[in-house]
Amino acid sequence: MDIQALRDRNPDHWRRSTAIRMLAMDAVAAANSGHSGMPMGMADIATVLWSKHLKFDAANPDWPDRDRFILSNGHGSMLLYALLYLTGYEDMTLDQLRNFRQWDAITAGHPEHGHAKGIETTTGPLGQGLGNAVGFAIAEESLRARFGRKVVDHHTYVFAGDGCLMEGISHESLAMAGHLELSKLIVFFDHNGITIDGSIDLTDSVDQVKRFDAAGWHTQRIDGHDPEAIDAAIEAAKKSGKPSLIACETHIALGSSAQDTGKGHGALTSDEILSETRRAYGWEHGPFEIPEDILSWWRETGRRGATAFAEWSNRLDELGAGKRREFDRVVAGEIPKKLAGTIRALKKQVAESRPEIATRKSSEMVLEVVNPVMTETLGGSADLTGSNNTLTGDMGVFSARDRKGRYVHYGIREHGMAAAMNGMALHGGVRPYGGTFMTFSDYARPAIRLSALMGAPVIYVMTHDSIGLGEDGPTHQPVEHLAALRAIPKLQVIRPADTVETAEAWEIALQSTDRPTLLSLTRQNLPAVRTEHKTRNLTAQGAYVLAEAEGKRQAVLIASGSEVSVALEAKAALEADGIGTRVVSIPCFELFAAQDEAYRRRVLPAGAVRVGIEAAVRDGWDRWLLGERGREAKAGFIGMEGFGASAPAETLFEKFGITAGATVDKVKSLL
Amino acid sequence: MDIQALRDRNPDHWRRSTAIRMLAMDAVAAANSGHSGMPMGMADIATVLWSKHLKFDAANPDWPDRDRFILSNGHGSMLLYALLYLTGYEDMTLDQLRNFRQWDAITAGHPEHGHAKGIETTTGPLGQGLGNAVGFAIAEESLRARFGRKVVDHHTYVFAGDGCLMEGISHESLAMAGHLELSKLIVFFDHNGITIDGSIDLTDSVDQVKRFDAAGWHTQRIDGHDPEAIDAAIEAAKKSGKPSLIACETHIALGSSAQDTGKGHGALTSDEILSETRRAYGWEHGPFEIPEDILSWWRETGRRGATAFAEWSNRLDELGAGKRREFDRVVAGEIPKKLAGTIRALKKQVAESRPEIATRKSSEMVLEVVNPVMTETLGGSADLTGSNNTLTGDMGVFSARDRKGRYVHYGIREHGMAAAMNGMALHGGVRPYGGTFMTFSDYARPAIRLSALMGAPVIYVMTHDSIGLGEDGPTHQPVEHLAALRAIPKLQVIRPADTVETAEAWEIALQSTDRPTLLSLTRQNLPAVRTEHKTRNLTAQGAYVLAEAEGKRQAVLIASGSEVSVALEAKAALEADGIGTRVVSIPCFELFAAQDEAYRRRVLPAGAVRVGIEAAVRDGWDRWLLGERGREAKAGFIGMEGFGASAPAETLFEKFGITAGATVDKVKSLL
Repeated sequence: MDIQALRDRNPDHWRRSTAIRMLAMDAVAAANSGHSGMPMGMADIATVLWSKHLKFDAANPDWPDRDRFILSNGHGSMLLYALLYLTGYEDMTLDQLRNFRQWDAITAGHPEHGHAKGIETTTGPLGQGLGNAVGFAIAEESLRARFGRKVVDHHTYVFAGDGCLMEGISHESLAMAGHLELSKLIVFFDHNGITIDGSIDLTDSVDQVKRFDAAGWHTQRIDGHDPEAIDAAIEAAKKSGKPSLIACETHIALGSSAQDTGKGHGALTSDEILSETRRAYGWEHGPFEIPEDILSWWRETGRRGATAFAEWSNRLDELGAGKRREFDRVVAGEIPKKLAGTIRALKKQVAESRPEIATRKSSEMVLEVVNPVMTETLGGSADLTGSNNTLTGDMGVFSARDRKGRYVHYGIREHGMAAAMNGMALHGGVRPYGGTFMTFSDYARPAIRLSALMGAPVIYVMTHDSIGLGEDGPTHQPVEHLAALRAIPKLQVIRPADTVETAEAWEIALQSTDRPTLLSLTRQNLPAVRTEHKTRNLTAQGAYVLAEAEGKRQAVLIASGSEVSVALEAKAALEADGIGTRVVSIPCFELFAAQDEAYRRRVLPAGAVRVGIEAAVRDGWDRWLLGERGREAKAGFIGMEGFGASAPAETLFEKFGITAGATVDKVKSLL
Repeated sequence: MDIQALRDRNPDHWRRSTAIRMLAMDAVAAANSGHSGMPMGMADIATVLWSKHLKFDAANPDWPDRDRFILSNGHGSMLLYALLYLTGYEDMTLDQLRNFRQWDAITAGHPEHGHAKGIETTTGPLGQGLGNAVGFAIAEESLRARFGRKVVDHHTYVFAGDGCLMEGISHESLAMAGHLELSKLIVFFDHNGITIDGSIDLTDSVDQVKRFDAAGWHTQRIDGHDPEAIDAAIEAAKKSGKPSLIACETHIALGSSAQDTGKGHGALTSDEILSETRRAYGWEHGPFEIPEDILSWWRETGRRGATAFAEWSNRLDELGAGKRREFDRVVAGEIPKKLAGTIRALKKQVAESRPEIATRKSSEMVLEVVNPVMTETLGGSADLTGSNNTLTGDMGVFSARDRKGRYVHYGIREHGMAAAMNGMALHGGVRPYGGTFMTFSDYARPAIRLSALMGAPVIYVMTHDSIGLGEDGPTHQPVEHLAALRAIPKLQVIRPADTVETAEAWEIALQSTDRPTLLSLTRQNLPAVRTEHKTRNLTAQGAYVLAEAEGKRQAVLIASGSEVSVALEAKAALEADGIGTRVVSIPCFELFAAQDEAYRRRVLPAGAVRVGIEAAVRDGWDRWLLGERGREAKAGFIGMEGFGASAPAETLFEKFGITAGATVDKVKSLL
């Protein structure tokens, strides 16, 4: 690459874009850690995009109608931090850049949503940002259909690298975007031909442009260092009427001795490479030093959107009071006031009618009453609509033709669905939920983890949550999934026992605006266990006494979901034998752990024998069974020790010994 | 679809293929559960493939040089069971078909590897079979390069549906196959345009042929009900010199009233639809009844390969004694006799030299001595070769040009890598291992689960296994992964503390031929803790006493991996304060749980205070801390309660309180 030619072609552009390059190099050098090469390679694209196209106002970073900028190749985080600093985002100070990758700095190794304004999503695990972007674009289309293009009309721009496009999730996401014709989604592919292991010739020969063509995208190939080509490509992309891929030929670690090498992907930190590269760039300034004219040009860029923001605010005022209130409410993520009453009424009704149904069906009953009052929900399923019971009559289907529809047929794309839901939740204005079989939560797990890490209020509807799934067999029967999902910090896993608990679970999920919730629901029918109406949401305590011992309390049975009724049956048998038995329903470990110790001790008093019952592995249960500090109780567990099998559900519960009879025997053996 | 025209076009073919259709319908009806539509749609393709092309001998189902047939759309399991019965596989009796999806039957809802010969892999979770097939094809190429085409020369055939091709893993797999030019891989795409939610128009508009073209595949589109077109397409595919996609236009649930509908995807069980369809098929036989002429034609098909098998056996005999012995050994999965001595010698050496290195580096030291004596290993990494330390000097790179290379650059494709390794392990003759960062085990999790479910001896090399990863931050720092992976039944998770334990861990992994192993390795350097040479593999006990209390034993510290040295440091401080402290190293929960109770009690005696130390969440630890039945010990845990952060590793251990000092305080607070 002839750097001098680049410098000469457009000297102003060169200096502006090189401000990004040098901040990235200086910060990585200061941290002695990070990725210099990507920002050096993509600085030209970023400069053109941010200065000529991106609709934003650094002084109003929460502007709901701003364009979204998503750095899917998140290891190049310094590119984003440099842009936020240069354009004048208040919290992105030069000190933060100096403290790149240090404790308490907002400039984490990979961009962390919530650390600073302008970080639209947490990226780093490759492909996730692209997956989120599909959700951002869906949310925009949905809100535009609902509130009109005067107040909702923005683009989603993505930077993605070879890694993002190699990951499987990229296929799911681009296929969804193509099918749904998300024309306001524009992806810049940093086609630098380098991965960590070296040249991409080692690993890949996919023609990415042809691949995106095959999925219905508008595609272009350009020189990613040519500002005019970049500008023209963005113009063409905006007009294309399709999601658009701009494949940019770039040079990783441009202008350094590590250019176009695997080494250039990583941290360039030696004094030698820094001073060499400074020289090649014609950059005569010290570390973290941006000349005044460059900084002021960038700061103006940061204020470029101020007028548009003011005009937008006026248009918002013209929306009409009712619509305006609704817009403000959904953007703020506020729950409709009617929700609590709606859920309460359903709880009262089913406490009386006591339906003997699967909790996936209970979930549908809840959605039937919730969706009409909470019109910001955007539901969906990864091709298991009739099994997940996620579609209600009022929703309509979101499609290329109908943007008012509120149900997304995600196809057989669990990972793409989850990542898109993260994007929707982060975009705001909509509340996404989506379903699949619980065993396939594994396919979506990297995105579920990010929901939790970001505190994105996504609701996962995971049905067929045990061997109760029956004949489909062990590939489709979760046994370790409850444990594995509960292990994810900040993820609320709720496994309700009947329709009342399912209604309470949904209420918790919808009220939780700072964390994701995962509902674990049965395929098989269950008897009602909450047959007395209580206004209070008992599930919100995580665990509670469902049935008190009649005789002297000698045993406590602790169960969740489909096994709560097993516990009640065992209690009846034990009481008949004179063994006083309490039944504790534990729909949510996380919420129970969050109660104060006094409450936890009241629910699980020391002394009595404890038996846990759950059609899953024991991992994670011992805290409740054995006592939080040890020495509390003798305990046992009725559950699964290995994978399931293919047979009718009733046979499986019998053969694997998850029955009232086995529970009674276990209690007696411990007494 | 004009069924009469199909019947008339080739009446013999029609009756033969319809035998499959009717067995599938009858079995699903008997089970009142399953998927009729796929076998009805793909029976023509199966009939042509099995009768004219597939190299197999039903009487010698373990023939190492057989073609592999993989049903990636595993919900159509009855297609495979029908074929195995018809062609005369001994264990696939008519009774097994009658007991489809019942307890103890080998005819599970989805094909389960190990239930019957001819089930090459477990499928059902969509896309996995396709992913496995890439590994089968790599194994074939590798063995052919090593032993010659006279004894290794077979194809891998895959049936895949819309669901397989929508899943992200399909992208990773097809890109790998195209790049590696796996020309003996032939995929039949059941392009029926139907998924569970309905028409594929709801969810997808990818041009699959163009997509495979973009990845370097040979592609064809054919009528999937035309036997001559099918035959010609297979011929063309074999000659193409590339992996080949045959997109077959088919009709799901062909000839029934549910044809071409979402309903046709599922179980067709009513008497009405069965008798209607029988009539349309012109099939005048009762349930499970195959007319003699049809059965005998199929049985002949099953013997078709007998001559080829005999000829192959002769060629094998001509291989020369040494090569023949080696072939037999690797196919049988036998470990080289030299392995034990090699590992022992390394252990002895490092017990003396006591290198202070990261366990990922220890792992590389082990591989440097193992790979030369165990030449069937096939290593690799998902683009983190230099970080996972998985490549040794003797291996060479497996590529389209060099089939003798033993290292696969998998690219940024964790899921595709894991699924391919399953295929390699199932193929036999090679021993796959592959690396990525432990946090990205989430991307590979569906395939890791299948390794465990199948007992496939895959070795996962997961490095950067805690906040010790440092600056990359919480997206890259596993905290819940150890718990989540340990929760998978039959997966051996081993987290060694130093080089000696790492050598022992590798020995266990390589000796385990009936289960997968996952190694959890550090980024950061660790002191040697096993400084006295022991011939015995102590890690194989799962946990053991590393350092006994000097004073009266009041505390037991239990730690794994990088925290074992923390425990030793805490012990020193506690002993100095007169608190006798035992240190237990627990590299593998699963192996410790498999020891007899007496041993477990010796290692973890009741009474003394216990503190667990692991830079991860507590889930799964309480069994060891609190005592297996409760009431054993007062206990505490030093670990993570949430996600990590971006900062240098030492800072993180300090800030998150995973230190010897915190351990000492915890012990004292419990005494």
